[in-house]
Amino acid sequence: MTTINDNYLKLKAGYLFPEIARRVKAYTDENPDAPIIKLGIGDVTEPLPAACREAMVAAVEDMGQRQTFHGYGPEQGYLWLREKIAQHDFQARGCQVSAEEIFVSDGAKCDSGNILDIFGRDNTIAVTDPVYPVYVDTNVMAGNTGAMDDGKYQGLVYLPITAENSFTAEIPEEKVDLIYLCFPNNPTGATASRAELQAWVDYARAHGSIILFDAAYEAFITDAELPHSIYELDGARNCAIEFRSFSKTAGFTGTRCAFTVVPKTLTAKAADGSDVELWKLWNRRQSTKFNGVSYIVQRAAEAVYSEAGQQQVKGLIAFYLENAKIIRQQLTAAGIQVYGGINAPYVWAQAPAGLSSWDFFDKLLYHCNVVGTPGSGFGAAGEGYFRISAFNSRENVETAMQRIAEQFKV
Amino acid sequence: MTTINDNYLKLKAGYLFPEIARRVKAYTDENPDAPIIKLGIGDVTEPLPAACREAMVAAVEDMGQRQTFHGYGPEQGYLWLREKIAQHDFQARGCQVSAEEIFVSDGAKCDSGNILDIFGRDNTIAVTDPVYPVYVDTNVMAGNTGAMDDGKYQGLVYLPITAENSFTAEIPEEKVDLIYLCFPNNPTGATASRAELQAWVDYARAHGSIILFDAAYEAFITDAELPHSIYELDGARNCAIEFRSFSKTAGFTGTRCAFTVVPKTLTAKAADGSDVELWKLWNRRQSTKFNGVSYIVQRAAEAVYSEAGQQQVKGLIAFYLENAKIIRQQLTAAGIQVYGGINAPYVWAQAPAGLSSWDFFDKLLYHCNVVGTPGSGFGAAGEGYFRISAFNSRENVETAMQRIAEQFKV
Repeated sequence: MTTINDNYLKLKAGYLFPEIARRVKAYTDENPDAPIIKLGIGDVTEPLPAACREAMVAAVEDMGQRQTFHGYGPEQGYLWLREKIAQHDFQARGCQVSAEEIFVSDGAKCDSGNILDIFGRDNTIAVTDPVYPVYVDTNVMAGNTGAMDDGKYQGLVYLPITAENSFTAEIPEEKVDLIYLCFPNNPTGATASRAELQAWVDYARAHGSIILFDAAYEAFITDAELPHSIYELDGARNCAIEFRSFSKTAGFTGTRCAFTVVPKTLTAKAADGSDVELWKLWNRRQSTKFNGVSYIVQRAAEAVYSEAGQQQVKGLIAFYLENAKIIRQQLTAAGIQVYGGINAPYVWAQAPAGLSSWDFFDKLLYHCNVVGTPGSGFGAAGEGYFRISAFNSRENVETAMQRIAEQFKV
Repeated sequence: MTTINDNYLKLKAGYLFPEIARRVKAYTDENPDAPIIKLGIGDVTEPLPAACREAMVAAVEDMGQRQTFHGYGPEQGYLWLREKIAQHDFQARGCQVSAEEIFVSDGAKCDSGNILDIFGRDNTIAVTDPVYPVYVDTNVMAGNTGAMDDGKYQGLVYLPITAENSFTAEIPEEKVDLIYLCFPNNPTGATASRAELQAWVDYARAHGSIILFDAAYEAFITDAELPHSIYELDGARNCAIEFRSFSKTAGFTGTRCAFTVVPKTLTAKAADGSDVELWKLWNRRQSTKFNGVSYIVQRAAEAVYSEAGQQQVKGLIAFYLENAKIIRQQLTAAGIQVYGGINAPYVWAQAPAGLSSWDFFDKLLYHCNVVGTPGSGFGAAGEGYFRISAFNSRENVETAMQRIAEQFKV
């Protein structure tokens, strides 16, 4: 008989977003006219930048002529795109990242899950708590954890990020091998200072660990002192892989383009103790199990780096950050303690009056018709917190905040 | 220290296509003006159908308006696309496949590699020989094989398809759990009759095996008696997953869209002996490690099913099949024994005069400036054969065949 991967059976049945959808549906089935405003899932809402759209129309035209038609592209992505990424996102910030070290993909979610393919099953894995659920679930699927016990998977090392430690992931006392860090953080909106990230890099180099650094939200950084890339820190080229995405930067959640940086200086150990270049393994993984991103989409991504594209993207980011500011101000005025939302599109709110995350979710849904994301869905240490996304129209954000302010006014 | 997935070190260093590229480069470095014609890699060359291009331009316009903007889509693909696929590709041929059972993806290569995520590591795996290398390499990476020994990976069951058995994959005497079948076949261009496929389905049902059926080339079937889908056979819904692609059908190799069918009636065994729905596992895998195909690309795929799209696709297929016919005729006239190329875009040629596959490759490269693919690169039983792809312009195909005919004329 054919057998399944039994690790899948360890996964929690109710993934966060399906459970939210279920509760919203139950409510709207009974209240079909409720003017629901969704500030839950981190999905952009504003039009794709004109520069990207123009580039795509031109690319579609290319596909209509034999001479300019594009079949299979390089699995790693077209060099013209990788060179622009390397130059604008890294070299311009003093990071030694070359086009050869960039792997264009269809999503940072895919990359952050697929990256486990190239690592051994005997590594100790550390994640923050709360955490982007994909990091945890892909480790469960890969067999890197035991069963779930009291909200946590056995075998994973959880690093709490809460108000008590100023939302800093504290370096663990034990030795861990793979460490997932996401800054600006999803879901808390917290950031990591240069000194904090340097401490992580130093830890990783001292222990032979690899940092899986998710910088999907770097474009939202407004504080000039904060690093945008892990490669701004000394030694990171020897201990870190970085994930980036056009999803939140340029509104590509439905267009699909991202990239991963694997420095050629990065190695890990084979069973015989030898050092193996991770670049070679990831290149082999992508060449064998991936066939590159649509030519048309890569042209759209390239247009992000044009002068017009850069201006339009800045406009989008500023728009969402203004939404975040409104959320922060209104919730604060309603007596709700908030974090994040300054260098990130997420506001992390403390549920008032000792409510649990899901109690607060229900209250906002029933009384304000506003949908957010319960913090406990991101991990045990997220209990009592609530994520509100700045991705929506100005009008929706203002209306939602007015409703909450009225409901919770002191 | 962080460890790597040691299984990667078992992979053969020289993957087929990089080795071809290396030899072509060495030759063209010395002969920069050589008028090389590439009939090696199975990549389409003709423009994308107008219906698809028009749909993409309209979709790009959608992305420019807030009201019609599309962010994250369903991981499984938009229902409007899945319904058209179910109706045209399956229900119209009498197959009971519903939209819910279709998972839209960015490539059949990705899907046929990723599918191993949901299966256990204790399954016995059967592949044909010669074989599409991705099936083998992804099993090596997943740890489903031992080391390579004499051109074969230990632990895999190889099913020869050669002239001796009329290019039929013979049902093995031993019990196997996962069976990769690809018909019309890449690389041999062979087909499987209804009776042959039914025998496979019956074998799978008797042994609790799962058939991974790659139908990426079904659009090239001209013989009305041949099945296009494994689900045309009785019982296949209980033992088969099918991979399909728009790559070769509609020229999407650079546009990227494919889909996989996982019937809701399909189960495999958990460690405790219970039956688990594979649909649920694949849905969980895709929801967690994939984020859907670009909205714009899905609209292009949908347009394949419009009246204009269907006509344009038929024109493309007929064009490439006429190329295949010319290849067959010219090689036959040159005294070279050929197979395939009637219901498939690949012609499988026997290297003349007892030449090895690579000797024939070199001879065609040096004397005819024509690049094909050595059959031995697809497996030990491919030795002495050579794949010629019909994907090129009429002029290039005719010129290439004239050169070969002159070189080998009797």
